[in-house]
Amino acid sequence: MPNIDLEAANREALEKLLNAAPTLIGMGVAREVVPGMKELGEKALLHAGPPITWERMSGPMRGAVMAACMYEGWAADSDEAAKLAESGEIAFDPCHHHHAVGPMAGVTSPSMPVFILENKTHGNRSYVNMNEGLGQVLRMGAFSPEVTDRLRWMEKTLYPTLRDGIAKALQDCGGIDVKNIIAQGLHMGDEMHNRNKAGTSLFLRAIVPYMIEASSDTAALVESIRFIDKNDHFFLNIAMAAAKCSLEAAHGVEGSSMVTVMCRNGTDFGIKVSGLGDEWFTCEAALPDVLLFPGFTKDDVNRDIGDSAIMETYGIGGFALAAAPAIVQFVGGTPADAANFSLEMYEISIGENNIFTLPAFNFRGTATGIDIIKVAETGVTPILDTGAAHKTAGKGQVGAGIVRMPIEAFLNAAEAFVEKYLDE
Amino acid sequence: MPNIDLEAANREALEKLLNAAPTLIGMGVAREVVPGMKELGEKALLHAGPPITWERMSGPMRGAVMAACMYEGWAADSDEAAKLAESGEIAFDPCHHHHAVGPMAGVTSPSMPVFILENKTHGNRSYVNMNEGLGQVLRMGAFSPEVTDRLRWMEKTLYPTLRDGIAKALQDCGGIDVKNIIAQGLHMGDEMHNRNKAGTSLFLRAIVPYMIEASSDTAALVESIRFIDKNDHFFLNIAMAAAKCSLEAAHGVEGSSMVTVMCRNGTDFGIKVSGLGDEWFTCEAALPDVLLFPGFTKDDVNRDIGDSAIMETYGIGGFALAAAPAIVQFVGGTPADAANFSLEMYEISIGENNIFTLPAFNFRGTATGIDIIKVAETGVTPILDTGAAHKTAGKGQVGAGIVRMPIEAFLNAAEAFVEKYLDE
Repeated sequence: MPNIDLEAANREALEKLLNAAPTLIGMGVAREVVPGMKELGEKALLHAGPPITWERMSGPMRGAVMAACMYEGWAADSDEAAKLAESGEIAFDPCHHHHAVGPMAGVTSPSMPVFILENKTHGNRSYVNMNEGLGQVLRMGAFSPEVTDRLRWMEKTLYPTLRDGIAKALQDCGGIDVKNIIAQGLHMGDEMHNRNKAGTSLFLRAIVPYMIEASSDTAALVESIRFIDKNDHFFLNIAMAAAKCSLEAAHGVEGSSMVTVMCRNGTDFGIKVSGLGDEWFTCEAALPDVLLFPGFTKDDVNRDIGDSAIMETYGIGGFALAAAPAIVQFVGGTPADAANFSLEMYEISIGENNIFTLPAFNFRGTATGIDIIKVAETGVTPILDTGAAHKTAGKGQVGAGIVRMPIEAFLNAAEAFVEKYLDE
Repeated sequence: MPNIDLEAANREALEKLLNAAPTLIGMGVAREVVPGMKELGEKALLHAGPPITWERMSGPMRGAVMAACMYEGWAADSDEAAKLAESGEIAFDPCHHHHAVGPMAGVTSPSMPVFILENKTHGNRSYVNMNEGLGQVLRMGAFSPEVTDRLRWMEKTLYPTLRDGIAKALQDCGGIDVKNIIAQGLHMGDEMHNRNKAGTSLFLRAIVPYMIEASSDTAALVESIRFIDKNDHFFLNIAMAAAKCSLEAAHGVEGSSMVTVMCRNGTDFGIKVSGLGDEWFTCEAALPDVLLFPGFTKDDVNRDIGDSAIMETYGIGGFALAAAPAIVQFVGGTPADAANFSLEMYEISIGENNIFTLPAFNFRGTATGIDIIKVAETGVTPILDTGAAHKTAGKGQVGAGIVRMPIEAFLNAAEAFVEKYLDE
């Protein structure tokens, strides 16, 4: 193993990641602004995780697809939607193939409004749709009229109000500094994957004055602010897109073993590595250990799902659990467990964050930059805190919990890394 | 010592404190709504801490009085203001004599707008003026035109906007539940005395939709929200009034040794005790150990000042430092020190809070209800984290830090307690 080169390459990848400046600069409609989406054809759906066909999709992913078909008007009911999906008429593609991310099922359809983030240091952009809240929501695989009605309200009312506010912010102050909100949020009890209460609060503080200045529809404005206020996870999607455009800047460093993508589609877990190009390394997705909502059992829980693992890839989420002792009320365990998980992550990380710090560890930077070599050597794999969906399409969220990523994908990647860089 | 009665009395006082439901229900102008203020005469100023004359006032208290005289139009400049104050024409009275509180100098003048809180359980009300921000502000003893201009803007622009929003909230949902915001804030890195960032965020989330609905002046609305957004201490005053109306409900329990008022005027420290009526027990105020703003030295620091010690009397602030590891960046020390201070406070408290909990202590309730007997027996006195003012009038804030209350006032009260309840 050429240690010197590996270290230098990983230092370079980590520096790019740490220097990224993710900024919310606008919103648009997916089909118009997400690169390569239009080219997939009229009936195209992006989804979380590595590539997958309808046949292999889990219940919640199928449910989300069905909800999207009804929301887009491609199907009148869930049966029609399932038939359409089976017919092969829909082009499925990972969000990650389009500089995009999506929590849970991550299904993003052409009419959905998306946030546009720009990494001001490196100039690249990322995209993500808006968070719908908890429970009966598309991203958890639910497809009742409640779900599609909410999506339509988000498109017709929330979207223009937020879009105009963000446009005003872009004009007046260059957009909303998302990295700064994340850094502050980590000092306010968020770890930014499953607890985004501070992030959502700080985002509202930042955007509301611009929304007021840009809006002429008071009722829509008030409804929109109340919708965001009622959903402490609203900021998650924006933070995920911040992670995405930061990590893309660190991708493609020759000789780097740093993970730049980590995601799950409910069936498979997949990663990409900075020095290993576009290749996906996959294995079966894990089963999360879930603190269940009332009325559900362990047997209801689907395999791990969502692009939200981008948060841990970015050095927060499970890697910053020590910032969020109160999260154990949502994901289970004790605050001491949470802190221990964060500590363990230093073993498999390339460095420590210079901006994201943990007050409980005396302001030590979070473990940042997962190294496939360290994972392979130690057997320690990343810890995520995550939402959990019902394994049957249409049922929605069953709880939230802690989950450790399966090692096989890392071992596959490590093997390819050795082959590429050492068998020349 | 009749232990059984003491325990029962203290349990009763603590229960009253814990059952209080402080709610923000309105705003008004001090002279019109603060009970007994008009009766003091036209030139009346309320101040922090126990009673004090102009002669014995510290620099920052004098500076605040001078600022208030100019703000009210009673004096054209600081010299005139000082002469007026010296002349005996101004009636000085503690905020605490009027169901009111004020941070730092706590000077509240007749034209100042105040928040009105109601304890929905017991029906009593409390009052507090609005927080001006940090640095060059009246409550820190500054009196430059910047200070009085800001106060006038707060009266003309911020006040009507907030007042109308709070009135709308009262109408729609019975007012803003301040206790709930405090409880959430403790899980978001606030201890609510010197770190109110989460409280201010949550307050904004709660009030902004109502402010928008009630306002017809978009410019004033946006200016007001931005002013609050720029001042992470904005919520402190509201939280102080919540503590005040909760503690007043617990005052007057025969045989209770629980502290219901703890405050400083920059010269003296003073307390009141539930079972000891209206009597003040005082001693010299402490000198805080301060993390200084750039350009100041230890010699610049005034003795401890402000009614904000009501936060610790209420079981938060220094008693909840373990909730706020990030506060050490503002007050000095390490997160471990902060946690240890909170732990020590259980030794002198009657019980643990049922609503205010510390995630870092596995959700243990904060130490609540300071017992003068326990203070006298252990020699442990309450820890506060506090702002610090320059000892010269007109200079403003010099930093923030940790300060332990002096024991003499507690010993004086304990002596009176023994005399009243045991020498019969």
